[in-house]
Amino acid sequence: MDELEQARQCASVMMAKDNASRSLGIDVEIPSPGSAVARMVVTETMLNGFAVCHGGYIFALADTAFAFACNAYDRLTLAAAANIDFLCSAYLGDQLVATAVERNRGGRMGVYDVRVTNQDDKEVAVFRGKSYATSKSLLADSPAT
Amino acid sequence: MDELEQARQCASVMMAKDNASRSLGIDVEIPSPGSAVARMVVTETMLNGFAVCHGGYIFALADTAFAFACNAYDRLTLAAAANIDFLCSAYLGDQLVATAVERNRGGRMGVYDVRVTNQDDKEVAVFRGKSYATSKSLLADSPAT
Amino acid sequence: MDELEQARQCASVMMAKDNASRSLGIDVEIPSPGSAVARMVVTETMLNGFAVCHGGYIFALADTAFAFACNAYDRLTLAAAANIDFLCSAYLGDQLVATAVERNRGGRMGVYDVRVTNQDDKEVAVFRGKSYATSKSLLADSPAT
Amino acid sequence: MDELEQARQCASVMMAKDNASRSLGIDVEIPSPGSAVARMVVTETMLNGFAVCHGGYIFALADTAFAFACNAYDRLTLAAAANIDFLCSAYLGDQLVATAVERNRGGRMGVYDVRVTNQDDKEVAVFRGKSYATSKSLLADSPAT
Repeated sequence: MDELEQARQCASVMMAKDNASRSLGIDVEIPSPGSAVARMVVTETMLNGFAVCHGGYIFALADTAFAFACNAYDRLTLAAAANIDFLCSAYLGDQLVATAVERNRGGRMGVYDVRVTNQDDKEVAVFRGKSYATSKSLLADSPAT
Repeated sequence: MDELEQARQCASVMMAKDNASRSLGIDVEIPSPGSAVARMVVTETMLNGFAVCHGGYIFALADTAFAFACNAYDRLTLAAAANIDFLCSAYLGDQLVATAVERNRGGRMGVYDVRVTNQDDKEVAVFRGKSYATSKSLLADSPAT
Repeated sequence: MDELEQARQCASVMMAKDNASRSLGIDVEIPSPGSAVARMVVTETMLNGFAVCHGGYIFALADTAFAFACNAYDRLTLAAAANIDFLCSAYLGDQLVATAVERNRGGRMGVYDVRVTNQDDKEVAVFRGKSYATSKSLLADSPAT
Repeated sequence: MDELEQARQCASVMMAKDNASRSLGIDVEIPSPGSAVARMVVTETMLNGFAVCHGGYIFALADTAFAFACNAYDRLTLAAAANIDFLCSAYLGDQLVATAVERNRGGRMGVYDVRVTNQDDKEVAVFRGKSYATSKSLLADSPAT
């Protein structure tokens, strides 16, 4: 199995059980090992008291892209920390895209950068996540691979 | 109107229109101006592919406490940035509490610290948010106060 | 005066009084408004107890690049916050380069990304800074411009 | 050897070789394992172009407190990442105190909070650091303990 196929199998295993991402309507693609693209449309239930998308949902989209990017290597990998800068608001119906790329991976830790853009390619947020790899396999523990 | 009453009126105005927080079942209290306590129970739809609460929902809870804490002064105030450290996992049925306190407020910017704990008072995450105050009133723009 | 010339005059005014950057041997260039390149060689006094460059000096280099990048518009602009990820160690004699670019500027706040690399073009650290612009001029307050 | 004595021996070993902290005039105390107090006076060479203490030196002080706090357990532990919020300026002659406390330690990672205050007990900065423990001993590798 080559690296890209492994990354995509890890993503399939994760997505199959990922209620959270599916219930937000998030769709994920793996262009290459260590990267991920996640898409989400802003719905009514995501709006806060100022009629813009709650920051929690923008974070959730970025965090999902990050989680799929860092789980490409068949080692169960967790988000240890993240920071996010909100650059402009997102509105009802906006089509958001979060693109995660790997900046660094060494030892058990990794650093990933995520940009969240809207349908006009404007940056809505930038996110940087730190991951921590456990020694558990993703594919071995999965029922049917 | 004293400061605490003003803070609570701001919170009422925000919550009345806050689909996002309500759809997550988040309940908010304002113990004092500049602080907020938000509560949320982890549901099935919040679980990710590892059967633990998706980080996005933990962030959303912390971010909600932060938003209500920094909007106490009748100036519409936005989240500019935040960072979060995930300290332990949250599971189905966990009763999470996010407590936001003001660290600093000067000019248009503020810094708020949020702790997220579970029903055993264990720290699930620590969050630090930066706010940016606009010159818009919250209460003046609201239909009936 | 065009934008690039203004950015460079702001940098000259700052550097003339900047004991800190000069005492660290930091050299700054302004390739375009909103960006800056700062260079520093790791000296004996910068080594910590593990014989690698103290993180404070790597931060100082990145912070200097950030400060010069965000002060390009003749408004005295301060660092409000920053985060840094240390990706590999820097050693005695390493020639570090910090390159700052503007990600976003809106209202009084800005977001800047800084990469710190060594002489082998390896990433030593990534830094993200938030700036806050005051209403004070840099050039008007300076004795001879 | 009890835990506090071990923490203090680790600090002695580190400080003996720490040119960086000593050249900044930083003094460190270990009140308990996992915590540290670092003190520094703002000197002429620490001033930036705005006649206030360069953020890099404030970061360096906080980072030193963090490094001594997280190296209490006789495992060589590195700073993986940090974020800092600058709350007020520090001036020539200010007596800064950085107090680091452990928020969490699990697996190889730790989270530490540092407050930097001045002689009037005003908060100059808040800092949060993430540490990564290697499997190397600090005391075993040291010539005379």
